[in-house]
Amino acid sequence: MKTSEANLIRKLRRAAPKSRPNSGIALGIGDDAALFISKKGYQTILTCDWFLEGTHFLRDRHPADSVGWKSLARAVSDIAAMGGRPRCFLLSLALPEELTGRWLDQFLGGLRRASRKLHCPLVGGDTTRQQRVLINITVVGEVRQNQALLRSGANPGDVLYVSGHLGEADLGLQRLRSKTRIAKNDPALKRHLYPTPRLALARWLADQRLATSMMDLSDGLSTDLQRLCAASKVGVILHSNKIPKVSVRKWKSLPPPDPLELALNGGDDYELLFTVAPTKASRLPRSRQGVPLTAIGKITRNRAILLTPSDGRSKSLTSAGWDPFKVSNNRS
Amino acid sequence: MKTSEANLIRKLRRAAPKSRPNSGIALGIGDDAALFISKKGYQTILTCDWFLEGTHFLRDRHPADSVGWKSLARAVSDIAAMGGRPRCFLLSLALPEELTGRWLDQFLGGLRRASRKLHCPLVGGDTTRQQRVLINITVVGEVRQNQALLRSGANPGDVLYVSGHLGEADLGLQRLRSKTRIAKNDPALKRHLYPTPRLALARWLADQRLATSMMDLSDGLSTDLQRLCAASKVGVILHSNKIPKVSVRKWKSLPPPDPLELALNGGDDYELLFTVAPTKASRLPRSRQGVPLTAIGKITRNRAILLTPSDGRSKSLTSAGWDPFKVSNNRS
Repeated sequence: MKTSEANLIRKLRRAAPKSRPNSGIALGIGDDAALFISKKGYQTILTCDWFLEGTHFLRDRHPADSVGWKSLARAVSDIAAMGGRPRCFLLSLALPEELTGRWLDQFLGGLRRASRKLHCPLVGGDTTRQQRVLINITVVGEVRQNQALLRSGANPGDVLYVSGHLGEADLGLQRLRSKTRIAKNDPALKRHLYPTPRLALARWLADQRLATSMMDLSDGLSTDLQRLCAASKVGVILHSNKIPKVSVRKWKSLPPPDPLELALNGGDDYELLFTVAPTKASRLPRSRQGVPLTAIGKITRNRAILLTPSDGRSKSLTSAGWDPFKVSNNRS
Repeated sequence: MKTSEANLIRKLRRAAPKSRPNSGIALGIGDDAALFISKKGYQTILTCDWFLEGTHFLRDRHPADSVGWKSLARAVSDIAAMGGRPRCFLLSLALPEELTGRWLDQFLGGLRRASRKLHCPLVGGDTTRQQRVLINITVVGEVRQNQALLRSGANPGDVLYVSGHLGEADLGLQRLRSKTRIAKNDPALKRHLYPTPRLALARWLADQRLATSMMDLSDGLSTDLQRLCAASKVGVILHSNKIPKVSVRKWKSLPPPDPLELALNGGDDYELLFTVAPTKASRLPRSRQGVPLTAIGKITRNRAILLTPSDGRSKSLTSAGWDPFKVSNNRS
């Protein structure tokens, strides 16, 4: 079956919602560009994210439906990281002609489900042909003026918190890569394939003015925490026994991974990492809408990033999360 | 030399302007996302564009500096196409490690020049590693409420206009692909490597409320005109002798191309195609700030797209511009 760019755009247009009352979307797919109207008193958040075959997903391992879901969910997580709300997104898609049938339909199915769940309609983009699937997603969001939570706001003395449990998505990836048969409802697998950004929690933290700084965990705590500290020009003492880890049992023939190693260096968690002034820490509940909120360390003036084990001496924490330019770390 | 994502981001940050007084950019590179403040009474324009090695440029033919310039200029052209003004852009860049030195510096040099010339600062993006260079640019622009010029506004009876001359960029591409030595200041080559979107002209047309519809010519007149007509649900009679063509002389060993064929099917012109109501056509000058404005046809209720030669009968115009899904048309 031969396709053309026009046919492909028709398919994409069907994946976009028809009517958008009060959405702020004045013009969607089909023109040179999309038009968006911001609300008074709000800032516009802009973010974009690569999702590339061979780097971020494997065509023979990741279902097309998950590729669609995850490509949007992970980009929306950057909007959550600012304490914002997603408004719309642009999809840049390049793919081989043989994938413009069933694969594309399933991809768009997953993308449409994420789009509905995250209240973030498709409004435009660009398509072309390539031998490998290339995806780039731009998400436009909004946040009330002066309410955006930046990486740079942490102060010495602040308590460092994390939402949820860390390392489960990486466990799912290890199972997926093991080429062992996995149950479709395996929680770790689902966490890896269909992550959900912490939008409600992030907005609540911003609305309540509880956090001094925030980011989302996409590349692993050991790597992302360095970024937060660098932006805030601070250090941290991290307590390894306090980090909420995933429970790891022996699974099929795979040796059980180290939960701390998963929590520190596993990527794709899309949990929130944030700091709270010590005077406000008592206002933070232990969990919010079922999501645990755990104090895992303390921000320091000394710019070292130290990991304190339950027994023994603190040592410097090495960034060993996802870095596309580190050859040894070619994870998925 | 080994690099890391952090080093790459430092390089990109240096390519972004330091201070942005009154720019509306509240937060640039380095956080989870960028923050942008829209002006009251304006709509935000959103557009994104692929620029891929092997599809849109060739690493051994196109200077890195031109890849940087053109990747931004062509995306900004979509903002011009709406009658808008660019405000800022996001760069998604994937490249092989061996290009993170000199090639990247030259690429960023071209990008920075275009960014300054087009008043469109870099505010964020995403980077990763790939075997081939992949570029995706998102441009955010603005246009006064209800002043955006869409593809869908053409009415039967409107006069169809085009700016500039068509086909020169494609002539430049043919020379570049010929593997013959070309003078650096060859006008056709420069037009292909360093296009400039018609921002001032487009804004003037929008401000004066002269045009009923508009788009930019990126894939060739024969292809883009079909898009304008489809969006407006109209047809057109195009006069082949009125189309402003590039003057073609014999060049080195290359057979001189047909100027009409270049003008109809050559891509990368980034001229404006627009329609004007017949009652307003007399208000349109023959040229504006040195750019010729030429009436090339008339919009019709009958939805056929007809080309009328100076002698002989009208015939249906075939779309033969750039379509990435047409195998035979693998142009650059």
